[in-house]
Amino acid sequence: MTSETGADPVPHLNSAPHLNPGPRPNPGPVLEPDLDLLGLHGSLESPVIESMNFLNEISHRFPDAISFAAGRPFEGFFDIEEVHGYLRTYHDHLLAELGGDEIMVRRAMLQYGRTKGIIHDLVARNLLLDEGIDVDPEAIVVTVGCQEALYLTLRALRRTERDALLAVFPCYVGVAGAAELADMPLLPVAGSPEGIDLDDLVAVVLRARADGMRPRALYVVADFANPSGISLDHATRERLLELAEEHDFLLLEDNPYGLFHGDTEQPPTLKALDVGRRVVYLGSFAKTGLPGARVGYVVADQRTGSELLADQLAKIKSMLTVNTSPIAQAVIGGKLLTYGCSLRAANVREAQVYRQNLRHLLDGLHKRFPPGTGPRVTWNTPAGGFFIVLDVPFPVDDELLEHSAREHRVLWTPMHHFYGDGQARQQIRLSFSYLTPDEITIGLDRLANFVVQQCEA
Amino acid sequence: MTSETGADPVPHLNSAPHLNPGPRPNPGPVLEPDLDLLGLHGSLESPVIESMNFLNEISHRFPDAISFAAGRPFEGFFDIEEVHGYLRTYHDHLLAELGGDEIMVRRAMLQYGRTKGIIHDLVARNLLLDEGIDVDPEAIVVTVGCQEALYLTLRALRRTERDALLAVFPCYVGVAGAAELADMPLLPVAGSPEGIDLDDLVAVVLRARADGMRPRALYVVADFANPSGISLDHATRERLLELAEEHDFLLLEDNPYGLFHGDTEQPPTLKALDVGRRVVYLGSFAKTGLPGARVGYVVADQRTGSELLADQLAKIKSMLTVNTSPIAQAVIGGKLLTYGCSLRAANVREAQVYRQNLRHLLDGLHKRFPPGTGPRVTWNTPAGGFFIVLDVPFPVDDELLEHSAREHRVLWTPMHHFYGDGQARQQIRLSFSYLTPDEITIGLDRLANFVVQQCEA
Repeated sequence: MTSETGADPVPHLNSAPHLNPGPRPNPGPVLEPDLDLLGLHGSLESPVIESMNFLNEISHRFPDAISFAAGRPFEGFFDIEEVHGYLRTYHDHLLAELGGDEIMVRRAMLQYGRTKGIIHDLVARNLLLDEGIDVDPEAIVVTVGCQEALYLTLRALRRTERDALLAVFPCYVGVAGAAELADMPLLPVAGSPEGIDLDDLVAVVLRARADGMRPRALYVVADFANPSGISLDHATRERLLELAEEHDFLLLEDNPYGLFHGDTEQPPTLKALDVGRRVVYLGSFAKTGLPGARVGYVVADQRTGSELLADQLAKIKSMLTVNTSPIAQAVIGGKLLTYGCSLRAANVREAQVYRQNLRHLLDGLHKRFPPGTGPRVTWNTPAGGFFIVLDVPFPVDDELLEHSAREHRVLWTPMHHFYGDGQARQQIRLSFSYLTPDEITIGLDRLANFVVQQCEA
Repeated sequence: MTSETGADPVPHLNSAPHLNPGPRPNPGPVLEPDLDLLGLHGSLESPVIESMNFLNEISHRFPDAISFAAGRPFEGFFDIEEVHGYLRTYHDHLLAELGGDEIMVRRAMLQYGRTKGIIHDLVARNLLLDEGIDVDPEAIVVTVGCQEALYLTLRALRRTERDALLAVFPCYVGVAGAAELADMPLLPVAGSPEGIDLDDLVAVVLRARADGMRPRALYVVADFANPSGISLDHATRERLLELAEEHDFLLLEDNPYGLFHGDTEQPPTLKALDVGRRVVYLGSFAKTGLPGARVGYVVADQRTGSELLADQLAKIKSMLTVNTSPIAQAVIGGKLLTYGCSLRAANVREAQVYRQNLRHLLDGLHKRFPPGTGPRVTWNTPAGGFFIVLDVPFPVDDELLEHSAREHRVLWTPMHHFYGDGQARQQIRLSFSYLTPDEITIGLDRLANFVVQQCEA
């Protein structure tokens, strides 16, 4: 088990001999189990887990394949000395803020800490600067990655078995996982070429209400969604906010890729447009900060009695992980300080890599699948993000991925994993964040061979 | 909201102006709430949360009081340069292990990582060395502190509303919190001067079964429990393992304080005695490593089908926090490597501080409350750990703590918080881990004044 999506494996790490001594000697079916799997939490039987397992396992079995599957950030600029530098920068900042009291600084960075986090003020400054989102730092909870932020929010919103989560499908696997773990049913809302089918959204909400359910929130990635790559236009964002108000649900806006857009500006985030406190904003530093820090956050400025929803989430966090490592927060805090709290400034090189890779991928696809000739292969053309979706003229299941890996040495993600129903679709997701242009070129050659053979078969 | 027990506040951190801009302007009762608190998860109404809130809040209001309440590790030896050193040590270790491949090292330390963690081999070596616990590193999941380890385990063991957790009472507040959050009822088992009433344990299990419940596991701290300070003797440990086998439940052994014993050796841990894989072992580096790393772990070598329980816990973790910050793990890994994987060796100075503080506290109590004269005050005499319990001749509630804080400038923890029933008891918990001997002396003078006045009142 690794990584953020299950579609995002860490083959090298896991195949490093000292980190993973290889397959454990299988205790085997001859030995009686100590615990009956059917006596454990139901989430352990969910298709989400099977998806994650399968996708990780296959990338371990074919470590030399080129992988369009991993949605991990580009690591070409990773530098361990920078981590030391960020720690020192944050330390010095704190020392100045605390009037030179070194004992207080040590306490803040090394002792148990505030459940809501210690870099909330820097996060608030970043949100104002990069996204035009103006929030009270007290409405922010710093979390162990965005996944914990999501889980805290779902756990808080799930009171009874009637509480449900809406999500635009196809949907990031981690959302289905968090909902399973929170015992919260997931109600799929149809996606569309524009990102979301708003009529279907209303229909799903009304049907759920009629069935006695309470749809509490809609999970949505407005900018370069995973897996679709699609962004919502400005009008759709406004309409979503109106519908949330009208039908009384929250919007859980997840925004890991918004910074990585092309030459055109993105419309404002839902949170920037949110005047009625309808949006809970989920933030990640995995792509813009450093994945190894595992720091994310949630902005939850909704009023609950005399406190904010953020305070309620912090109470849940105090029972779950207590606080987010202040050392890890200091790394991200130091990076924010280094770039004047602008992650746009911090990611100039990375944004260029992703833009270049996207262009290279789209050009390469166009070259290999020219319209009107050969296999009928089409794809969408997001203006940024990490992913595109390919439509192919044959159904794609896990067996086919295995064939592609074994015979063609190229990995990608069958789209059915993002629907959770196991039904093969004529679509695959390609991720381009983690590869070099040369790897993309070789990978596309292999992919084209695979597709042509499939069409001839 | 701060810290691990709620009885363990972080007044200095939270009162630092830049970290906490003071009480947020109260949105106030005149404004309509956006979300009804009664529509949120039930754990948010639990007495556990109220306990944590109250204990934190009071320590913020009386920052100049001497606090016997905080169960935090002594921070006199904290050193930020050491963090840099540990990171370098782990880096060099990894570089050697990976045959000098710097890219692989960067990936391991800075990219998304293995869900079960990257320092599991070092943790296994430490367990063998310090505790005589011999486990397959694959049975270890590195977690975001011990609290996540506990929650993962409870979440896995909770399938239906029939699944319950047993716990020796009085009980660490974080256990009640994790159980609430996992929707798992907590069945109290009576403590005793020897640590646990085994007859009551059997009675509770049989009664629960008769009521249609499934008691899945007993949470137990065998060494210097929080809050009681009591350790189980060898025979009781053996008997517990037999009862777990006989009545088919697991033992969740939490061992944050075992290393800090006096001059006498402790009996082996339950896990070291566990031949039938009945014990899930919860580990913390907060007291022996560095609290600011927020790294803990769980040893779960129970077989579940062809995998281990650890693999199931990792699946849940992949939906909860994805992985534990490898940077934070590297800090702990570097500390382990620095001391040849012995935390005993790493904590020679700390162990001495705690021993000395305990002796100073016991001597001071004896001097101030000599037997046969004055108020009838008694206390237990643990051979180590962080806590002792004082019996006083009057009932102790939160109002009395507030009085003690305001009038006598001394804080401690009313024991009723560890029973969760709000019923005042004639007991208080004193923590001695965080203070200097001089602070203990002053604190005891204040405490004695408070007690004498209470007895005269």
